Amino acid sequence: MNACGIVVEYNPFHNGHKYHVSKSREQSGADCMIAVMSGHFLQRGEPAIIDKWHRTKAALQSGVDLVLELPYVYAVQHSDYFSKGAVLSLSALGIDSLCFGSENGKIPPFMKAYDDLKENKTSYEVKIRQALDLGHSYPDAARIANEAIGISTASFDFSAPNNILGFSYIKQILTYDESIKPLTIKRQESEFHDEHLSGRMASATSIRKEILKEDGLSEHARQALPQETIDQLTHYRERADLWHNWNLYFPLLHYKLSVSSLKELHAIHGVDEGLEYRLKQAIKTSVSFFDFMEKVKTKRYTWTRIQRVCTHILTNFTKVEADLYLDQNTVPYVRVLGMNQTGQDYLGQRKKKMDVPLITQPQKANHLMLDIEERASAAYYNPLPNDRRNNHYHREFGAPVRI
Amino acid sequence: MNACGIVVEYNPFHNGHKYHVSKSREQSGADCMIAVMSGHFLQRGEPAIIDKWHRTKAALQSGVDLVLELPYVYAVQHSDYFSKGAVLSLSALGIDSLCFGSENGKIPPFMKAYDDLKENKTSYEVKIRQALDLGHSYPDAARIANEAIGISTASFDFSAPNNILGFSYIKQILTYDESIKPLTIKRQESEFHDEHLSGRMASATSIRKEILKEDGLSEHARQALPQETIDQLTHYRERADLWHNWNLYFPLLHYKLSVSSLKELHAIHGVDEGLEYRLKQAIKTSVSFFDFMEKVKTKRYTWTRIQRVCTHILTNFTKVEADLYLDQNTVPYVRVLGMNQTGQDYLGQRKKKMDVPLITQPQKANHLMLDIEERASAAYYNPLPNDRRNNHYHREFGAPVRI
Repeated sequence: MNACGIVVEYNPFHNGHKYHVSKSREQSGADCMIAVMSGHFLQRGEPAIIDKWHRTKAALQSGVDLVLELPYVYAVQHSDYFSKGAVLSLSALGIDSLCFGSENGKIPPFMKAYDDLKENKTSYEVKIRQALDLGHSYPDAARIANEAIGISTASFDFSAPNNILGFSYIKQILTYDESIKPLTIKRQESEFHDEHLSGRMASATSIRKEILKEDGLSEHARQALPQETIDQLTHYRERADLWHNWNLYFPLLHYKLSVSSLKELHAIHGVDEGLEYRLKQAIKTSVSFFDFMEKVKTKRYTWTRIQRVCTHILTNFTKVEADLYLDQNTVPYVRVLGMNQTGQDYLGQRKKKMDVPLITQPQKANHLMLDIEERASAAYYNPLPNDRRNNHYHREFGAPVRI
Repeated sequence: MNACGIVVEYNPFHNGHKYHVSKSREQSGADCMIAVMSGHFLQRGEPAIIDKWHRTKAALQSGVDLVLELPYVYAVQHSDYFSKGAVLSLSALGIDSLCFGSENGKIPPFMKAYDDLKENKTSYEVKIRQALDLGHSYPDAARIANEAIGISTASFDFSAPNNILGFSYIKQILTYDESIKPLTIKRQESEFHDEHLSGRMASATSIRKEILKEDGLSEHARQALPQETIDQLTHYRERADLWHNWNLYFPLLHYKLSVSSLKELHAIHGVDEGLEYRLKQAIKTSVSFFDFMEKVKTKRYTWTRIQRVCTHILTNFTKVEADLYLDQNTVPYVRVLGMNQTGQDYLGQRKKKMDVPLITQPQKANHLMLDIEERASAAYYNPLPNDRRNNHYHREFGAPVRI
């Protein structure tokens, strides 16, 4: 069987994602579409609007054959670690190609950028360091360095968010598994971060904004979503009584920051350069998550970086834990969140050739990275009503979704 | 000036407390009545129904001249540490007498019990150890040992809760400051733990139960409370939007137990003998605080002991912190929560003779024990609405209440 991998968050699965899945299948000629998906917390340090199980189901109902969990350790990270965890997971399953959406829409410029970067590694690193020293954020510093060594050009905007992610996949593929063929699809209509919702191809950001603003599925939101997602959003809401967003976690964040010592905060992954003082100071006068973020963020500490740190504080994810995994050259396991018959057949075929364990029964497995997943789930479901919290939490130990 | 000390929690201040204050003043002939009061969390490991500032004000309006804070470190402890912190605080202020309520109502039996205990120290300790080894809780083991060496007699029920506390005061006085004259007043009408509210002399337990059950001040509750307390309960409710009880903290407890490692839990004061495993296991299936407590408590781990541990988990109070203070023979400071003119005059007179710092401006002081108080306040006020939490929390650093 021919398999094509995609890297997703599905927050929530929308028409643009459906387009991406079907175009990827077409371009790769794959029999099996495998998505590696962030769990309860996402790359930008946010809770997913509905849990990973409901997002998995919507994905399976809309053209994906197999959904793997991108472990928390890699998911809530900047693009290099995020894509490393994703590519290593997909590589462990022996995919033939990986297809990502990009603003650019063609592979050669990515390959050329990779070569250019390799050639100019030293001067690139000097430029980044200089920019960081001037107080720029890491993404800004990277953009400045790219421009300086001529990677970003008029025809290839290296700083466009999906180009950045795409380039990360290319880097990981060329570093860890050159047998994977990179493919890309030009993103349609909506721009990343376009917060204005219009038509059938809206961005996830604009859809979430619309849903959370209205606290219900408006006609606008429905237009941009497949029926399968509407069903899963509705079903989750009925069971959990809420859709997730950072505001729900503000009291927990306030609590954790207030009762933790500076030393305890410093032990959290991402709390560097004295950030613990800044966080502890800001929380004392903050009345909402937004208010808190506005107080903490600076040119150097971007909103996204601080949000990731807040997520790690919430899930108690430590530097020691991050150091155990992030710089390994393999993922310790691959965990299945859901599959259809095609996905199951593919797994049956691949299983014996895999170098790392395949986890479909987490209750029987035993791994620190699964404990971290369990903690992330406990934190994620905490805002649910008392009588519903544990039922959802126990789903963590259950079998994959099957359709 | 002649000063009489009392040890209180005032949760809330009721007619029985008013009787105790006025009788204590009468019996001691004191010009100044000094109460040392638990802060936001109480001896039995519970949050106070309203905050320490409102309880202080009600006390000052009802006959107390000076209110000191019994530091968290001593307050949320079994009777020996609780009374040690209380007696050492009052001793630092040079009180002449200490007057406690007791079931017994006379001092000589307490003094005799102290002598008997001293004489039979070794066999007493053997008896306690034997009873603990048989799986009895500490209070039970103490009761068994008392009976075995003949301290508890038909005329002196040593296991009555206020006799136990009273005996603790006596022990601390005879150990640390024999210049304090012990006095006692027989408790009127209501029994400790009597949950049935009737008449003007109801127990604090029955009053709280009535208030929280009705979520308002019923006629029954009003009868048992001075107008000053009714005013403070009402005022707090208007400002904080709630009255405190353990149920409000259940989501935080769930969160903390779920995301903390076994090692982190073991570092908390009171988490001994593998209790961390039991707590982590029980929380996974608990839907309320009561449900959780029922799952954790055993003959050996009494309800109160577990509640104290839960409080320490909530406030992140560690073994290391407890060890710094509990076995010291002096309190590191005395902090004033409130005073009237008489209290202020007394302080003016005593201040220069004191061996430990007197704190009336915590924002200018710097002490780890004040940091612990700050954390306890942060945890205590966490369930308040986002826009009210910080205002109350900042009260921690403000000046004492003055009337």
